Amino acid sequence: AQSSVTVYGLLDMYMQYGKGDGTQTQIQSGGPQGSRLGFKGTEELGNGLKALFQLEMGINADTGASGQGGLAFGRQAYVGLSSNELGTLTLGRQYTPQFVTVDSYDAFATGTGSVAASGVVSAIARANNAVVYASPSLSGFTFTGMASLGESSTAGQKSFGNLYSASVNYAAGPFSAALSTILQKRSATTGEDAKYALVSSAYDFGTLKLYGLYQIVRNQGTVEANDRREAMFGVNVPVSAQGTVAGALGGSRISGVDGGSASQFSLGYLHNLSKRTRVYAIASRINNSSAATYTTTSATGDGPVNTVGGQDVKALMLGVRHAF
Amino acid sequence: AQSSVTVYGLLDMYMQYGKGDGTQTQIQSGGPQGSRLGFKGTEELGNGLKALFQLEMGINADTGASGQGGLAFGRQAYVGLSSNELGTLTLGRQYTPQFVTVDSYDAFATGTGSVAASGVVSAIARANNAVVYASPSLSGFTFTGMASLGESSTAGQKSFGNLYSASVNYAAGPFSAALSTILQKRSATTGEDAKYALVSSAYDFGTLKLYGLYQIVRNQGTVEANDRREAMFGVNVPVSAQGTVAGALGGSRISGVDGGSASQFSLGYLHNLSKRTRVYAIASRINNSSAATYTTTSATGDGPVNTVGGQDVKALMLGVRHAF
Amino acid sequence: AQSSVTVYGLLDMYMQYGKGDGTQTQIQSGGPQGSRLGFKGTEELGNGLKALFQLEMGINADTGASGQGGLAFGRQAYVGLSSNELGTLTLGRQYTPQFVTVDSYDAFATGTGSVAASGVVSAIARANNAVVYASPSLSGFTFTGMASLGESSTAGQKSFGNLYSASVNYAAGPFSAALSTILQKRSATTGEDAKYALVSSAYDFGTLKLYGLYQIVRNQGTVEANDRREAMFGVNVPVSAQGTVAGALGGSRISGVDGGSASQFSLGYLHNLSKRTRVYAIASRINNSSAATYTTTSATGDGPVNTVGGQDVKALMLGVRHAF
Repeated sequence: AQSSVTVYGLLDMYMQYGKGDGTQTQIQSGGPQGSRLGFKGTEELGNGLKALFQLEMGINADTGASGQGGLAFGRQAYVGLSSNELGTLTLGRQYTPQFVTVDSYDAFATGTGSVAASGVVSAIARANNAVVYASPSLSGFTFTGMASLGESSTAGQKSFGNLYSASVNYAAGPFSAALSTILQKRSATTGEDAKYALVSSAYDFGTLKLYGLYQIVRNQGTVEANDRREAMFGVNVPVSAQGTVAGALGGSRISGVDGGSASQFSLGYLHNLSKRTRVYAIASRINNSSAATYTTTSATGDGPVNTVGGQDVKALMLGVRHAF
Repeated sequence: AQSSVTVYGLLDMYMQYGKGDGTQTQIQSGGPQGSRLGFKGTEELGNGLKALFQLEMGINADTGASGQGGLAFGRQAYVGLSSNELGTLTLGRQYTPQFVTVDSYDAFATGTGSVAASGVVSAIARANNAVVYASPSLSGFTFTGMASLGESSTAGQKSFGNLYSASVNYAAGPFSAALSTILQKRSATTGEDAKYALVSSAYDFGTLKLYGLYQIVRNQGTVEANDRREAMFGVNVPVSAQGTVAGALGGSRISGVDGGSASQFSLGYLHNLSKRTRVYAIASRINNSSAATYTTTSATGDGPVNTVGGQDVKALMLGVRHAF
Repeated sequence: AQSSVTVYGLLDMYMQYGKGDGTQTQIQSGGPQGSRLGFKGTEELGNGLKALFQLEMGINADTGASGQGGLAFGRQAYVGLSSNELGTLTLGRQYTPQFVTVDSYDAFATGTGSVAASGVVSAIARANNAVVYASPSLSGFTFTGMASLGESSTAGQKSFGNLYSASVNYAAGPFSAALSTILQKRSATTGEDAKYALVSSAYDFGTLKLYGLYQIVRNQGTVEANDRREAMFGVNVPVSAQGTVAGALGGSRISGVDGGSASQFSLGYLHNLSKRTRVYAIASRINNSSAATYTTTSATGDGPVNTVGGQDVKALMLGVRHAF
């Protein structure tokens, strides 16, 4: 009884046999893709102008809770206007351009097995109170910029909590490449700003697609930390009409902190039963240096429990994803 | 794949340049209308009888949270039966008749810029455990009554937390007028009951529509306070096929509390890009007496931070609303 | 604008005149059926195989909150694959086979008035991190088995928090019968496992349908308690094309705890205004032994407040249910 809204989503559930602090069997939500329920739509306004919106809830289907710490629409919530010539302007809770770039150049698309999902490669997924501008494609180039406001009213601290992110992407046939950056203003008076800068590229040979990404990070996330250099490489190989093999290798090197570095290797096979339904098997291994405690993770943030520095993590995931 | 439920909603987001404790730039959800996602439907049962329901979630699209303090369907959640001849009886979480009346006689419809949204004019929006009866129109008169139960089982305190509200509305061509009241039983043994009584009227001249409302309040909301006398006046002027100018002026006078009074003036322009999509600019100013700390507010309850008594507040809002 | 997902639900609201600690009038959500909003779908994959999913939110429509303690989809959240020949395998938050069996052999279907809703007959409704296998019907027999994982990684405690449940159902014309069981591993080191075992049967004479259920319980729910023997009997009588009378009688006997036993009697009339809309009146009475504090309850967990051991509870409920 309604034509202006599309209800959509997907459920992705898997069994995981993992080893961290100990061996562990888990039923998890959100493997290659986070389980979600969404509502979206567009309206043509004439003259190449349209209105658009999207509301997307993350779902921890293993427990019935909503994801992203219990938010109603923690994945995305925005509204905006789009012009064929001028680009798209949206307001709300949105993905950072940096995260979208990492996701696009990740053979595991920031899902389970991804070097970025485990945090070995750093990304800030979403930001509140955000304005995002996305340009139309200009000779293969697209630009995306975000300003997310901390909304401080305190004198001398007006920019605290603000986050800025931008990316430039270039695509020409099988080749694509991107530059992306984040500047996150500290909300505390003493902390230094977090800064991310990455370069990435991909090439689709038809028989396989290769991905590479290199990132320099200062004061990662919301805590003041030492410099990090991160890299990840990936490959997607279509092995049949229905099946794809994915592989990824990545690592981070932290200067100034002894034993904070880690590396990860993942291999997966995804088999499409239909366009909407897929089964998969993914194996991932993280080698933690003496002080690192990275673990593979689901979209709900649960992986094999790993609290002891230097302990390696292994995980085998068998699952199903159904989109609707 | 479903004909008995309508999925609907709207997203309303704006940028705000405000001044309260300090200057502040904000991205907010819920300007002229609160962002929402809803599910509703009716079923004809024959003989002029029908069943109806509505579930409506408030959305803070700037953060992805659900509104009204995190409720799944904090705006409305009710089911009921309706008869053409006998009227409509509904049970659930519902708007009070007093709020519906204030909303109907407010040039800003209790959205951003509204004298009632800031609290200068008092309203109690919703009540839990509520039965609402709405009469059919009788010679232009309609009656609505609500009983909301506190559900106390303690002897001598059975009515504590109960809320009663009623309104009578009269409409005849361009003229309409209403009386409305609230009686809120205190849940504590010592407090006195809160009582609201208002009279309002509107006249649509075609070239403009005028609104006026006057209310007497004792022990406003949930705290025992002194008497208040509140008034608000508004005008809507259609200036083109797509554009409307709205203006409002209102104030409250508190007896017995020094410096608790305040006044507010708002001016806005709303421009329809289509029936469903609108852009708008609204400016509002509140003059607080020495002890008052009112601020303009969004549907999420966030306005310019204002904590110092007597400080005036200014806000300029630029936004977009898309209904679906 | 979407054919692969069905939006459905129901709202069930009622007024209750109850007596527990004192007399009490309440507006409640979830009488004979819990109020809910759901999203579900199936996809044919060919060769008798299909994918299926369901997301179902419980709604406390009296307050607008989501049910099951605030979960987004606290009733059900699962995805799976189904084969005509091999059966159905689903992963997520799901009903236990024991609860489904109790529900099927309860004249009040675990709604208000049900001996199982009040807890006099024990049931564990749902489990997280669950794999459920449901067989196809084999000569009238169907088997359902669940393993719900506690996901512990602690050595020697790997099974803590696990829950296993299974049921076998037999149906032949008007006759049906079931066996069902639960084994719940304690999550604490000292507690003993909870064990449930039940046998149930029903016969549909056409003019009425009779139900019976008998259950032995050790260490009920999540606390270590003494042995319980529980029984409930019910009848559904179609008295007209639109009306059904329901009756239920049940009780529990606890060995080793003085005064922990209770019995309940319920009588209801449900009248269909249409296939989707129903009004109803239900009366229920619980006789508590000296230490028991059972109360009749809604799907939101609210009944007449009853905190004094040995106090009997009476409730009369008048309501409406509308499905969509």
